Amino acid sequence: MAKTAGFEDKLLSGRKLSKLMKEEIKVMVDQLIEDGKDRPHLAAILVGDDGASETYVNHKVKMCADVGFESTLVRLPAECSEAELLERIDELNRDETVDGFIVQLPLPKHIDVEKVTQAIDHRKDVDGFHPVNIGRMTQGMPAYLPATPFGIVQMLDRYNVETSGKECVVLGRSNIVGTPMAVLLSRSRKVGNCTVTLCHSRTKDVEAHIRRADILVVALGLPEFVRGDMVKEGVVVVDVGITRIKDPSKKSGFRLLGDVHFQEVAPKASMITPVPGGVGPMTVVSLLMNTLKASQKEIYQ
Amino acid sequence: MAKTAGFEDKLLSGRKLSKLMKEEIKVMVDQLIEDGKDRPHLAAILVGDDGASETYVNHKVKMCADVGFESTLVRLPAECSEAELLERIDELNRDETVDGFIVQLPLPKHIDVEKVTQAIDHRKDVDGFHPVNIGRMTQGMPAYLPATPFGIVQMLDRYNVETSGKECVVLGRSNIVGTPMAVLLSRSRKVGNCTVTLCHSRTKDVEAHIRRADILVVALGLPEFVRGDMVKEGVVVVDVGITRIKDPSKKSGFRLLGDVHFQEVAPKASMITPVPGGVGPMTVVSLLMNTLKASQKEIYQ
Repeated sequence: MAKTAGFEDKLLSGRKLSKLMKEEIKVMVDQLIEDGKDRPHLAAILVGDDGASETYVNHKVKMCADVGFESTLVRLPAECSEAELLERIDELNRDETVDGFIVQLPLPKHIDVEKVTQAIDHRKDVDGFHPVNIGRMTQGMPAYLPATPFGIVQMLDRYNVETSGKECVVLGRSNIVGTPMAVLLSRSRKVGNCTVTLCHSRTKDVEAHIRRADILVVALGLPEFVRGDMVKEGVVVVDVGITRIKDPSKKSGFRLLGDVHFQEVAPKASMITPVPGGVGPMTVVSLLMNTLKASQKEIYQ
Repeated sequence: MAKTAGFEDKLLSGRKLSKLMKEEIKVMVDQLIEDGKDRPHLAAILVGDDGASETYVNHKVKMCADVGFESTLVRLPAECSEAELLERIDELNRDETVDGFIVQLPLPKHIDVEKVTQAIDHRKDVDGFHPVNIGRMTQGMPAYLPATPFGIVQMLDRYNVETSGKECVVLGRSNIVGTPMAVLLSRSRKVGNCTVTLCHSRTKDVEAHIRRADILVVALGLPEFVRGDMVKEGVVVVDVGITRIKDPSKKSGFRLLGDVHFQEVAPKASMITPVPGGVGPMTVVSLLMNTLKASQKEIYQ
């Protein structure tokens, strides 16, 4: 029996919502083509042959095909130099047929990630990692939002979760999830206006914060860290964690655990994301949305 | 009698500290000159003849002289076009003798502030308002920090206020104070590692947050909003507010009030900024520090 059984009515299902949103994007692309416009075009650079990265990139490429986007996959060997990578980035920056592109992370150790991120033209930075996009987001200006926070914001929006005036507690202050999430939810925007507390490894009484959260976003990478006795009745729970745990009873040999103990927390929550099938599928939709915006020059001219 | 009388030992005195830091900067500039290097050079653009803006800019120019910086004041008439202003910005961007420059805000209504802020080369953006600097700050990278948050961070540093693991509550989410302050104090840095809660106009029970703060930063512009019965014993209070209140008993005809009721809060606080003479004087020092960094290419090559 699925672990979500019995809680179907309170699921924030990224699986279902992402499917719906992909269909919506496809309709918009069909309309563009009908209007004689170009297909949105996403490019991805993959350095090396890390299995997980390859899976992620291939998935993104497949999603592009599903919604009618053009896609280009640029593969570089693991031993490619930083200069070579920067040159390919510069080519994509200048290529007018490419609306947006990403460099799949992580990169080999000899390459400076910050330098790479900043080499991408911010107008094509559909991952939303460039300082210009993070800065504009922080200042409340239109920007490409980083995929995971953007996915979460869309999920809260589509499921009509009221955020204004709510106590929101974010666990984890990473650059790609926790920190931008805390910033976004505190801004004056449709999904925003929360009173946000950002907790991290130095937080002294994290349980006291968890207990007073109306909306709890957990991005720690600590399997089942949040237990049932820690949360308030009616809390909305967004679980960003996804950790592989060995499980010989599974055909794959492992199972996926979130940062939230689903069985204990779901009974008290008003809404909750499952893992898998929650936040994960939304991040790819964010990338597609950003690429669509890029093709329509919605954010930058 | 000064309103700070009796509380001298718990004052976070921006007046004293800024004087000391200016002397330190002057010593560094003297050393640069002795080493045959150029004087740091700050330029400022002032559009129109708003009295307050003129006072601020003149004060900045005077501070430059005090520490041995070169300064240039560019004055443009209130009716100057956005294009003219952008052209002057471009000139300063390209002028190799200018290390950093600012455009004094506010600008006349017919000029787009965002466009102006973004036209400044981020490597010369010593006000720290450009999205690249805000983005880099948010991502924990070296950046020019916005003046007020930078001044506060320096004050907490020099007065040896322990921040790591402390509960910090920031009241007000403005782009130039509250939001960057909340981001900075939550990052893993020397003055940082706080558990930060950012409160604003939509916050439901702001008093409950104020009451649990170890460090309270108030940037609301609401005179004497924080009263004695709201705060915890031992709290460190940083009052960014400064409002002119008519007062016929003063020679100037007004007095300045902070967002914190000093007389009520000081007895409970372990440290507190006075108004005036607290945060205010630190912001100009931040500008000088950023300009010194710019002249030494500490952040950008």
